[in-house]
Amino acid sequence: MGKEAAYELSLLLNTPSSALGSCRYKLKDYEEDETDYKRILEIFQKYDVRYFFYNGGNDSMDTCNKISKYMQHVGYECRVMGVPKTIDNDLYGTDHCPGFPSAARYIISTCMELYLDARVYDTPMICIVEIMGRHAGWLAASAAAATYTGFGPDLIYLPETDFDVDNFIADVKEVYDDNNGKVFVAVSEGIHDKTGKLISEYGNETEMVDSFGHKQLGGLAQTLVSILKDHFPGTKIRGIEFSLLQRCASHAASQTDISESFEAGRVAVEYAVHGISDKMVGFRRKTDEDGNYKCEIKLIDLDACANTEKKVPLEWINAAGNGMRKPYIDYLLPLIQGDPKIPMQNGLPRFANLKKIKAKPPRKK
Amino acid sequence: MGKEAAYELSLLLNTPSSALGSCRYKLKDYEEDETDYKRILEIFQKYDVRYFFYNGGNDSMDTCNKISKYMQHVGYECRVMGVPKTIDNDLYGTDHCPGFPSAARYIISTCMELYLDARVYDTPMICIVEIMGRHAGWLAASAAAATYTGFGPDLIYLPETDFDVDNFIADVKEVYDDNNGKVFVAVSEGIHDKTGKLISEYGNETEMVDSFGHKQLGGLAQTLVSILKDHFPGTKIRGIEFSLLQRCASHAASQTDISESFEAGRVAVEYAVHGISDKMVGFRRKTDEDGNYKCEIKLIDLDACANTEKKVPLEWINAAGNGMRKPYIDYLLPLIQGDPKIPMQNGLPRFANLKKIKAKPPRKK
Repeated sequence: MGKEAAYELSLLLNTPSSALGSCRYKLKDYEEDETDYKRILEIFQKYDVRYFFYNGGNDSMDTCNKISKYMQHVGYECRVMGVPKTIDNDLYGTDHCPGFPSAARYIISTCMELYLDARVYDTPMICIVEIMGRHAGWLAASAAAATYTGFGPDLIYLPETDFDVDNFIADVKEVYDDNNGKVFVAVSEGIHDKTGKLISEYGNETEMVDSFGHKQLGGLAQTLVSILKDHFPGTKIRGIEFSLLQRCASHAASQTDISESFEAGRVAVEYAVHGISDKMVGFRRKTDEDGNYKCEIKLIDLDACANTEKKVPLEWINAAGNGMRKPYIDYLLPLIQGDPKIPMQNGLPRFANLKKIKAKPPRKK
Repeated sequence: MGKEAAYELSLLLNTPSSALGSCRYKLKDYEEDETDYKRILEIFQKYDVRYFFYNGGNDSMDTCNKISKYMQHVGYECRVMGVPKTIDNDLYGTDHCPGFPSAARYIISTCMELYLDARVYDTPMICIVEIMGRHAGWLAASAAAATYTGFGPDLIYLPETDFDVDNFIADVKEVYDDNNGKVFVAVSEGIHDKTGKLISEYGNETEMVDSFGHKQLGGLAQTLVSILKDHFPGTKIRGIEFSLLQRCASHAASQTDISESFEAGRVAVEYAVHGISDKMVGFRRKTDEDGNYKCEIKLIDLDACANTEKKVPLEWINAAGNGMRKPYIDYLLPLIQGDPKIPMQNGLPRFANLKKIKAKPPRKK
């Protein structure tokens, strides 16, 4: 690889991972339909692909696992490794997932800033922020670290517990009365009532489903604004969706996350070269003699982590289901340490430009 | 002042300015109604207030000017100085306004990141971001610096020109066809048609009522999404509002802005102590012998800057009214330089806590 190409690749450390591209495509089981698998095998054979690394969350580990098992099934020798990456932090078998700490760091900073902004006037104001997380509330929970500094949400709701609208209104009223009419709420997009119905659907009966069979969500913050309106007449109530911003905010990334993410990929390659296959790389949390956080690499069977969601432990959520307990903060803080040194050009971030890298012609059989 | 109080105050450099509080209150002319003015004078006399600094944008300079003129009218000796601060960057008489470069820096980073995120899949995607700016488009224009890096909006619309829906659809279609169905649009919240009607109001005629019986007011981004839907059937179209985030994102501030903002306040105090009054502090742009940007302080009559809006020069907007020309980038880039060193505690930003500062008892007459 030339010097210029090596430099472009190094810039990926501080470029949103979307630069690599992605897809949302659910592979059927090969027993059910072999079409896709045959095509993959054809490509693998054509270019003599003997190492396959797949990067992503639960659905990606499912895909990776299926491809691994198929290659074993047909006897094609290929080392298949899953490399975790999901801001949702819900992969089984790993202490945490690359990407999550950076998204959490962005959410914490942004919540701290919004806390002040939403209190700038003397008048009452209820501010509701909607944070990603369909089934696991790791990201919304991270807003609790902002609260821990004194500048954060008063109430936090996760999909790990059932959401009750009447309790919610009572919670908001209590904070409103104690706090001069200032209330700051953080919610996971996936909060639901005890029947399992999503709160975001309370305002909208139509459903849209993506190719993974997930409901297309959106508008939860707005739904909650509507719910509160009748109970707080005349009060300014604002819903804010962090939207795509929270999953690509490389400018606010955690250096710990960047270093660990790179290490996960590097070790995956090293293991594969040494003959390991059919595994996902994961993290094990350690504490050194001085009580400092350390992160070790471990391997998990792809079978185990495909489609198994890891949720926020219930004992880390308070009894009222509207805030986080200290152990969650202790879990989170070591992960979000460190300001990355972002490469700049003309005072603007310099992202990797992958078009500048010419691939070597594939080695044909 | 004690050491601790001095430290807390120093933290204001990296704390969102909303920590200082604000108000939205329009003073009537004193010839019309003297009530408020009498009360202000009473307070000034009670605490022997002889220096009055007022920080804000157009409306604040109007207030500052009115108070200055009233104190002259009644012969109360008080030095009144306006200190500019508005992310809108629309104050007359100053090259730029404290706050604007930091908001611009946040918008540029965020647009660069969204550019990649909105292109992560192979499928078509139209992404529309709504940026603050009612009458002047300085902030939305700043997204052009992202485009300049190769990672930014394809189309940018400001309130300085009339917005035409048919032209907009044609613009989007052209980019869509050239670009594999990827289109990224940035708009100022205040864009309007040639009759002056706000585009954000286009969606309000057909009343959307949610299941709680509340009228749903979509923002401008959502209105544009609705407008495009029929023209791009099946294409994912997403509206994103930067909302309050863009005006309080201290984590992404420009160090140049922070230094200049501090200097503006410092010099305002210095001038006032030396007998100057009835002025606003402003910036004059200079270039040193090596061609580097420099910023000098100047004074502007409060009369001149109260209620006069400075818009983006039309010659900096392209002929089609959907993008920015190079001179705007040249204007902007020097202002957004420099990563601030943000004070941290436990790896989280350490904001000023003004409650920790005990005010000295006021000096009574």
